[in-house]
Order: sequence, then structure tokens, then C-alpha cells
Amino acid sequence: MTTSTNRPRGRRPGHADTRSAIQQAALALFSELGYEKVSLRAVARAAEVDPALIHHYFENKADLFARSVLDMPLDAEALVEEIAEGPRELVGERAVKAFLDTWNHPGGRERFTAMIRAAVNGDQARRPLSEFMSREVFVKVAERMGHPNAKLRAQLAVSLVVGLAMARDVLQLPALVAAKDSVLVKALGGAMQRHLVDPW
Amino acid sequence: MTTSTNRPRGRRPGHADTRSAIQQAALALFSELGYEKVSLRAVARAAEVDPALIHHYFENKADLFARSVLDMPLDAEALVEEIAEGPRELVGERAVKAFLDTWNHPGGRERFTAMIRAAVNGDQARRPLSEFMSREVFVKVAERMGHPNAKLRAQLAVSLVVGLAMARDVLQLPALVAAKDSVLVKALGGAMQRHLVDPW
Repeated sequence: MTTSTNRPRGRRPGHADTRSAIQQAALALFSELGYEKVSLRAVARAAEVDPALIHHYFENKADLFARSVLDMPLDAEALVEEIAEGPRELVGERAVKAFLDTWNHPGGRERFTAMIRAAVNGDQARRPLSEFMSREVFVKVAERMGHPNAKLRAQLAVSLVVGLAMARDVLQLPALVAAKDSVLVKALGGAMQRHLVDPW
Repeated sequence: MTTSTNRPRGRRPGHADTRSAIQQAALALFSELGYEKVSLRAVARAAEVDPALIHHYFENKADLFARSVLDMPLDAEALVEEIAEGPRELVGERAVKAFLDTWNHPGGRERFTAMIRAAVNGDQARRPLSEFMSREVFVKVAERMGHPNAKLRAQLAVSLVVGLAMARDVLQLPALVAAKDSVLVKALGGAMQRHLVDPW
């Protein structure tokens, strides 16, 4: 595809800095535009690489987001499976546990609270994380549960996750800081079940 | 009590600016220290007035907080009654409705999102609103429901309210922005019921 005359300066397919250039461009675009409005084509353009190269390094847009913005190998499709498979009455608990596990990933909590701070201080377009959680995880779970209003349900689920991050990690309300993950999974799992699974 | 020689310059008991001086001192102290750590005595000292004067103008600490920080006549005790009285299975819905009604008070939503921004940007001591909601409203409701873990339950309720304010008013997730209050009351009422009322 690329020839030695038209390929971007200093970046070669298969080279480590191609991957890094893609990630840097993705981080900048997602941070500026949110998750939904960014196309892989736009990332390729900003990174000055051939669009096919993005697919060479990353599974899909969700994978690119996880590795460039969240800086962790989060497999959104696997997460949806993990939450939706198994006893239906425990979907809420599995969803809360999945998110707490992500936060417990090294640096995870710091990164999430930093993104909340950025979202609060920027304009509302700066909500890549909540759009990602909604579109790639919660909407898919709610659809699997057979709900027609999956978007509203997914955004309520996001409000639960963001509320927990705010109350526990930003505001540091003492009873939440002291609560073990297993207690939070039980306590918030019921609320999450209402959002994602139960009929209204 | 005060004489013409030892009373603070330009402030007289019963005078409009005494009240205003108390409110300004209260706003500054609550903003700096949060809700719980501020005593009425400390406010009196900062405002350079006799402590008795605070009781002359304000019902109690909650009333002083509502009028000086929230800038609205919010009666926390009445709010607890409003939420706790009536059918037990609708406590959650009444709690969500009570908070949405406060946000719909003129300027209410702007003031709450401004406080969230301040809390996110300051250190975690700057959480006067969440401490106020927890201590003066949700802990009391949870206790009325007979729960021993009222603090944890109250702080989960705070996480729900803060999560909604974040997701709808700060991040402006579109399905939440579009949802009528009556839909949110139904949808979040169930989750709030889990936090405040249901056995775990």
C-alpha cells in the first residue's frame, strides 16, 4: 500500500512507533471528541498512517480506546459476555464486580478519577469514558436482557458507576471508602439489577 | 450582651447585615471544612456576632446551611418526613422526587453542579453538600427504616444522587437529559429503595 515515497516520514508498518503514533492520535481525538464521534479513519489520518494499519495493531475501536485512553487491555466484548452470561438474577452484581475489578487494575482508579475530573472541567463533549461504557458494555447487556429502552437503561447504569467513583474515590465518603468490594457488589448489585434487568 | 463599645463595627443585632454577615461566614466555613466539622459557635466567631444571634435568624445548622450555601429555604426535617411517611414501598421514589424537586428550584441545578465541580477540583474536605445530604436527610431516613448500617446506606444514596447529577447535568448523557422527571423517579426510585429500605 504505502511506498517509500508517499509513506509518512519516519514511520514504517510493523514498527513500534507506528503503534505508538496511532495510540497518541487516538488519545487526543477521544479526549477532544468523546468516544462515539471518533472514527478509525480519523485516527489514521491524524496519525498519518494507512487505516489498515490500525486493524493490524488493534481489534476494533473499543480495543483502541482501552489501550490508548484507559491504558489497559480491556476486552469490552468479553466484559459483556461475563456480565450477561450466567444466572439472570445476578447480572447486576456481575456488572458492578466487573467495574470494580477494572478499577483495581494497577493505576485504574487513578485513571478513572482523572477522567472524571477532566469531564467535569471540560465541556460535555469530553465524556469518552461514559460513552464507551454505555455504548460498548451497558447498551449491549440491556439489549441482551430484551429491553427496548436499552440506551436509557445503559445511561442509568453509567450514572451508578460514575456516582460510585465520585462518592468513594473523589469525595471519599468514609463508609464507602471503608466498604469491601464484596459489600459494594451486594449493595450496588441490586440497584444495577434494576437498571439493566428488572422490568419497570 | 453586646455593648456599643465591644460590638463589631457596623453590625447590630436585628440588623439586616448581621444576618448577611452570618451567611457569608457560614458559606466560607462550610466551603472550606465541609458540613460536619463546622459548628455554629465557629460561624458566630467568624462573623463576629454573639452565638445567640445565629439562633435568632436560623432554625438550626441545617437551616443555616440551606440558606447560606444552597441559597434556598430547604427544610431538612420536613424533607425526611416527606420521604419516610407514607407507603414504605415508595420511599425510594419519594426520595428521588424530593431531590429532583430541589434541583428544579430556580437556580438549583446550577448551584448543585457548581458544588460538584468545586468538590472535584478541591480536596476531599470540600464536600459540604454530600455530607449535608447524608447526615441531615438519608441517614435519618435509613434509621427510620430500622437499618443498623444507616451510614453506608445513606452514602450509597448520596452516590445515586451525585451520579444522576453528574450523568445528566454535567456529562449530559442524552437519554437522561431527555427523560422526564416522572420517568427518572420510577427508574431510580427502585435503586434508591434498595439503598434505603430493602433488606440486603
